Amino acid sequence: MLNKVVASAPGKVILYGEHSVVYGEPAIAIALSKRAYTTVYPLNTSTIEINAVNYGIKAEFPQERKKIDLKRKKLKILQPIWEACLQVLEYTNTKQGLKLRIESEIPRGAGLGSSAAVAVSTIMAVSTLIGAKFPLQIISKLAYEAEKIVHETPSGIDNTIATFGGAVLFQKGNITKINVKENIPLVIGDTGIERVTKQLVLKVKSLKEKYNDIITSVIKSIGLIIPKALKALNEGDLLTLGELMNINQGLLDALGVSTREIAKLIYAARTAGAYGAKLTGAGGGGCIIALTSPEKQKKVAEAIENEGGKPLITKISIKGVKIEEK
Amino acid sequence: MLNKVVASAPGKVILYGEHSVVYGEPAIAIALSKRAYTTVYPLNTSTIEINAVNYGIKAEFPQERKKIDLKRKKLKILQPIWEACLQVLEYTNTKQGLKLRIESEIPRGAGLGSSAAVAVSTIMAVSTLIGAKFPLQIISKLAYEAEKIVHETPSGIDNTIATFGGAVLFQKGNITKINVKENIPLVIGDTGIERVTKQLVLKVKSLKEKYNDIITSVIKSIGLIIPKALKALNEGDLLTLGELMNINQGLLDALGVSTREIAKLIYAARTAGAYGAKLTGAGGGGCIIALTSPEKQKKVAEAIENEGGKPLITKISIKGVKIEEK
Repeated sequence: MLNKVVASAPGKVILYGEHSVVYGEPAIAIALSKRAYTTVYPLNTSTIEINAVNYGIKAEFPQERKKIDLKRKKLKILQPIWEACLQVLEYTNTKQGLKLRIESEIPRGAGLGSSAAVAVSTIMAVSTLIGAKFPLQIISKLAYEAEKIVHETPSGIDNTIATFGGAVLFQKGNITKINVKENIPLVIGDTGIERVTKQLVLKVKSLKEKYNDIITSVIKSIGLIIPKALKALNEGDLLTLGELMNINQGLLDALGVSTREIAKLIYAARTAGAYGAKLTGAGGGGCIIALTSPEKQKKVAEAIENEGGKPLITKISIKGVKIEEK
Repeated sequence: MLNKVVASAPGKVILYGEHSVVYGEPAIAIALSKRAYTTVYPLNTSTIEINAVNYGIKAEFPQERKKIDLKRKKLKILQPIWEACLQVLEYTNTKQGLKLRIESEIPRGAGLGSSAAVAVSTIMAVSTLIGAKFPLQIISKLAYEAEKIVHETPSGIDNTIATFGGAVLFQKGNITKINVKENIPLVIGDTGIERVTKQLVLKVKSLKEKYNDIITSVIKSIGLIIPKALKALNEGDLLTLGELMNINQGLLDALGVSTREIAKLIYAARTAGAYGAKLTGAGGGGCIIALTSPEKQKKVAEAIENEGGKPLITKISIKGVKIEEK
């Protein structure tokens, strides 16, 4: 038995195609250079101790699936981590006391795939500790199962990106790896406004019910962005990627999911020299993403901060889940 | 000979379909309650004296078409008014000294049809003074000729709206009167940023050349707004008109003609309770237009002012050119 394993996995953003993906059009998601880290140690007890450093929460869980009133104990937030451990122990039919330390560079609750990155890095760390060699497909699958406990119907994008890194095309439930030039510079800006994905999906649905032909045409227009984006991602054509982000943003605005705060951060980023900027995820708050040259990342981040956003300098990463240390 | 005539004509805004109209889709323009006023007196001289109160310029012109270096004399701005007088005198084969006083409630150079309203009210006033009874078609046509001197290729929308009032549908050079409920409340917000229509039309053209299928689809989406807007204008359905304006705005943003300043005024208006808001005209600066309930006009105007815009409270008017006083 190893006495320590550290694994990490990346966060994600949707680059193109949010909302239109609900109506069968393709979407593109990419892995970020920002990662979640799980350190795991073996324990000689029957408990699983979880210390989530970023959440400032530490707690002990049983080694078997048991009904616990997590809500009352305010431990709901740690459930997917516990669940990730249980998935590995059950899959390998193992009993093992564990002590976990979770640290993450990925902002939480911002649509950046933080919980999937934690689940994936945890599954990689725990399985490695107990000597199991999981193929990546199994890691992704177990993370998906862990995610299901928390999110009703995860799309599968987050765990796929966290496991495999790089970029994926998502359409009608199918996830395909796509080529992407590494290190394309990004700046994320968090509006700090909580978004409720389900509400925004319903908002688009009701707009589509009232104006079916117009909204269907807008959704199809977003779909047409994807083939051009695939080519530009493959070639690392920043100018085209930026222009396509701006077009996508206008179309998302036409769907009614942009907001005043999103627009502020987007125009701040563009004015500071970004090639393009758009909301990422459901909209109604949440994050924007700007694509810049490496030289302009700092200036764009400052511009976002000046407009009240929380900036995060990052880039597209092809690195999926990996062992940092054994 | 009468010794004084006062005539007035309304300004206009494009409600839906700017830019897409260049590619054969329909657009809708409406007359505003803000008007230009021309007062004309007969003179016993051979000159035409023009006093444009809003421009703060007063000058004398000959009664016949003559080469004058208007640019050097900084009188270029008065040329369409002089030209409107010449059109009437030539059409009626009349010689008559004239003294004109022009006052306008319509902001100039903001895409609100100020120059056409001045031309139309001037043609109505001068023709009435000299005893000619022009049908409205002739007034509109002569104003178009006067406009041609200044704008290279006017669309014909401005002079039509200034003459007939109400609303028109414009498609492929054809202008059709459409039904509209009167007094639909509007607030215009001027960004104060000069726009150059030709540059913005070229910007869309070059985006369309690079991303033909996407931009063609966006343009078609705008076209689909028009039939729904026609119905809502006829019924005075403010909620639908507002939602359609918001969709149109997103699509204009996708075409790359919105700006940070436009977005600021639009979100200010929407946050203050407007049913909808969009840029009007070419974009890249210029004006936004917000559709509100009568009760919210003041609040929306204040919100626009707080974001650095110049607000104008107005409404849709069915009144075209008319004699105010003889």
